[in-house]
Amino acid sequence: MPGKSSKISIIPLGGIGEIGKNITAIRYQNEMIIIDAGLMFPEEDELGVDIVIPEISYLTENSVRSQIKAIFLTHGHDDHIGALPYIWPHLKVPVYGTRFTLGLVGKKLAEHELADKVPLHPVQPRQEVTVGNFRVEFFRVNHSIADAAGLAIHTPMGTIVHTGDYKFDHTPVDGQVADFQRLASLGEEGVLALLGDSTNAERPGYTHSEKAVGATIEEIFRRARSRIILATFSSNVHRIQQTIDAAVRNQRKMVVIGRSVENVVEVAEELGYLKIPKGTRIPVEELAGLPASKTLILTTGSQGEPMSSLTRMAMADHRRVEIEPGDTVIIAAAPIPGNEKLVARTIDHLIKQGAEVIYEAVSGVHVSGHASQEELKLMLNLVRPRFFVPVHGYQRHLKRHAELARELGIPSENIFILENGSILDMGRDWAETVGRVPAGRVLVDGLGVGDVGNIVLRDRRLLAQDGILVVVITINKQTGQLVAGPDIVSRGFIYVREAETLLEEARGLVREALTGKNHQGPSEWSSIKSQVRDVLAKALFERTRRRPMILPIIMEV
Amino acid sequence: MPGKSSKISIIPLGGIGEIGKNITAIRYQNEMIIIDAGLMFPEEDELGVDIVIPEISYLTENSVRSQIKAIFLTHGHDDHIGALPYIWPHLKVPVYGTRFTLGLVGKKLAEHELADKVPLHPVQPRQEVTVGNFRVEFFRVNHSIADAAGLAIHTPMGTIVHTGDYKFDHTPVDGQVADFQRLASLGEEGVLALLGDSTNAERPGYTHSEKAVGATIEEIFRRARSRIILATFSSNVHRIQQTIDAAVRNQRKMVVIGRSVENVVEVAEELGYLKIPKGTRIPVEELAGLPASKTLILTTGSQGEPMSSLTRMAMADHRRVEIEPGDTVIIAAAPIPGNEKLVARTIDHLIKQGAEVIYEAVSGVHVSGHASQEELKLMLNLVRPRFFVPVHGYQRHLKRHAELARELGIPSENIFILENGSILDMGRDWAETVGRVPAGRVLVDGLGVGDVGNIVLRDRRLLAQDGILVVVITINKQTGQLVAGPDIVSRGFIYVREAETLLEEARGLVREALTGKNHQGPSEWSSIKSQVRDVLAKALFERTRRRPMILPIIMEV
Repeated sequence: MPGKSSKISIIPLGGIGEIGKNITAIRYQNEMIIIDAGLMFPEEDELGVDIVIPEISYLTENSVRSQIKAIFLTHGHDDHIGALPYIWPHLKVPVYGTRFTLGLVGKKLAEHELADKVPLHPVQPRQEVTVGNFRVEFFRVNHSIADAAGLAIHTPMGTIVHTGDYKFDHTPVDGQVADFQRLASLGEEGVLALLGDSTNAERPGYTHSEKAVGATIEEIFRRARSRIILATFSSNVHRIQQTIDAAVRNQRKMVVIGRSVENVVEVAEELGYLKIPKGTRIPVEELAGLPASKTLILTTGSQGEPMSSLTRMAMADHRRVEIEPGDTVIIAAAPIPGNEKLVARTIDHLIKQGAEVIYEAVSGVHVSGHASQEELKLMLNLVRPRFFVPVHGYQRHLKRHAELARELGIPSENIFILENGSILDMGRDWAETVGRVPAGRVLVDGLGVGDVGNIVLRDRRLLAQDGILVVVITINKQTGQLVAGPDIVSRGFIYVREAETLLEEARGLVREALTGKNHQGPSEWSSIKSQVRDVLAKALFERTRRRPMILPIIMEV
Repeated sequence: MPGKSSKISIIPLGGIGEIGKNITAIRYQNEMIIIDAGLMFPEEDELGVDIVIPEISYLTENSVRSQIKAIFLTHGHDDHIGALPYIWPHLKVPVYGTRFTLGLVGKKLAEHELADKVPLHPVQPRQEVTVGNFRVEFFRVNHSIADAAGLAIHTPMGTIVHTGDYKFDHTPVDGQVADFQRLASLGEEGVLALLGDSTNAERPGYTHSEKAVGATIEEIFRRARSRIILATFSSNVHRIQQTIDAAVRNQRKMVVIGRSVENVVEVAEELGYLKIPKGTRIPVEELAGLPASKTLILTTGSQGEPMSSLTRMAMADHRRVEIEPGDTVIIAAAPIPGNEKLVARTIDHLIKQGAEVIYEAVSGVHVSGHASQEELKLMLNLVRPRFFVPVHGYQRHLKRHAELARELGIPSENIFILENGSILDMGRDWAETVGRVPAGRVLVDGLGVGDVGNIVLRDRRLLAQDGILVVVITINKQTGQLVAGPDIVSRGFIYVREAETLLEEARGLVREALTGKNHQGPSEWSSIKSQVRDVLAKALFERTRRRPMILPIIMEV
């Protein structure tokens, strides 16, 4: 094909699961920009893992590394900015984002002692940033966080529009409607490709306005006769603003409890994204002095997270707040997939303690931050891209989004469902996937980044399943004779006090396995070890139908 | 209160979570019957646990044990019959249920080598069983399994109606509509108390008929041009029947893959609950010889269970079936709370392999088996009980069901939300909760029933989180001198090859902790152990921010 030497490449990175969500590279000729640097969450079988970040080995290759000019952040949610402290030190390029996004980024960088090192450049919606051959323009979208933006990435080859996470809210809390005008004029000017948020591609109709939540909250505040406790996503500043407004109108003072919401409230107030009338927020110590009907506790734990404030309150384990009959607890959130049971458990405990609990399934205290089908169609018709790449979603969401695009007349051959690591090349009138780069999940556990791999995880899974049995024997290194042990210690296998005979039997089996043998030298020890392991595994499985990890240790004296 | 010496007691057993779901005791004077004997599922933090059964220590007390006359089963779902093999040997009383229920029970008992020991008595709907002072009458209800029944328990003090799991289906697949007539006449005769299924108490309106699923499945069969793979709950014989009917009408042959569905199909066909026209079901070996458009695979895995057939197919890990582009996969089920992510993952993998996947969120391939609000109201108005006890649900469902009952005019003081272990006593015109009996969860792991307790679980959680570090030292028992070690072995903590310096450092710290001390005798060893533990825990946390379990072992020679 002619002209292919000059092209744009779109490369979503990250692991399996959602495609093009957390980090995406866009290259024109030999210059590259990065969109977002977010983290993922551990899967259920990634035991003990704290967070997961995208693998960026492709970006840190020397030849690629030198092409990277800048990182652009669409909004301040963790799955879009949370990996920045891990990724930036490898790239060391300027970072662009809206003010509130960078406010949250600043907090995060400070926790990693990177506060003064990263060049953060605030950008206004409609403002353009030029880096090399890219002109990157931010445009306003609506989302469940303040100051969310999409990007129009202008290149000599054409314009790529990346929606970021978005919905269209005609009555947003801050009055800042998504930039229909700019999107329409981009469509008029001509857009080469659209990368569009697919999260809600399965939902028909329109996503409700955040204002609807405010109305419900106001109604609850009006009815409540005692204390109100509200938990929501910490970063949903608009919902927090509406909660504060309801508190003020209903003469309630607010206490904020929980590190993440305290952080966000601080950043948001400082930057002017949250207006808290003087005297409304009080320190937690003053709570006890006020009548219950005059108080609001804004807190964390809308996902039932075990260590969060609301969960601790539900379990009667919070140091400051005890749930009392008559309390109204509002969980202004929907459970993120995987958290359903945790949330259900929290609700159940709160009700048992006498609270009135108001949650999504029974009332309108949550709306999604993502566009439903009619909004997705609107975006497609505003932007009118030649090529369409559904992103931000699992295969099934991307597929549904692609179907919507086809219904709107975009030809199938112009729609690309990518995987993370795919490379999509395009010119003015062609596009094709041309191969793959390394992409995957890097597990972070404590201070270790990437040091928990398959072997460690496999061991944790085994240990979690049936525990461990440590068998220690001491052998004389000259004679090969057993001089101490076998000692057997188990953890997580069986309650030892009730299993003395079983363990005695196990010791006998080990002794038997060693008997009559004259083992000398480490070369034979590995065979002793595997013999001990086999004999015990078989016997224990027969007796208990469990398969603890068996760890033989030989000491030589 | 007069007459309290003669009373009925209602005692739901089982652990936290759903109330009165798995097993309930009902006593009149000194005679007791048991309703259902079901199992629960392990919570996420009950690591390695296979199933959970209700604690029955109360029932096995001598004085209570001798009162128990019989076990009545409402229907054949595992959460109502699955604990019978564990519970029956302690009670050894006759078991009553409908034919299909007992067919499934028989399979289960056989697996526990109890097949010929348990006296199983089949009962027809409208049939009565007299045991002591109880006359127990089975009445037909609709549910997501064949032959589901509720119980009208007649005692000299009055009648208790227990709905079992139910919905009202006006067009059931087997034509057996719930027994409105009998329920109405029970209401006319007078019902002392109703125990009613609350599972869907939060859902407004009516639950759809199972027939609606059949229509959707038929439509999918008509459109499909290649192979169809359908996974549903194994015990939903009606859905399986509708699938078979669609296969026959569309000239497809059926293969059944997956142990649980094979079991159910066998029992159901034998007892006449499933009609499979001759030649429709073929052995899996014949699959390859047929055109894809002429085949149906009925299988397990609608919950994304990791070891199930559908999940293995999705992961390209099934020995018999490979997913091919063009396959239509129908997941005719909704995810049970907690399984959402597993199901989502399965769907994603199937789509990636090119299958068209049809699941609940995008089509009507599932309806609930439980009554929604309008049906709950109908049940209450048919039965017109004096006292109402919402059961089968979490606190929030019971509370909502109670609200519905109040809206229908049942006075608050006649409605009782119990916990498992609560005793509700009642006479003809009074009722009150009068205390508690032991009730809880007994964990089953392999062959061990109840031997996995808090300590074992706590250890498994610790091991799952950050693994284990075993520190072995050998000490001369005369001199107290270190003669071998410290040897350190870790599992699930850190990838050892990349952590040699860390472990070397750890060995140094242990040596240091032992130096200059002349330890003699086991009395001092526990202090050595805790010193080793403390020193290592602190150092490892500082270096890695992880807290592996540290297990010091001292060998003496």
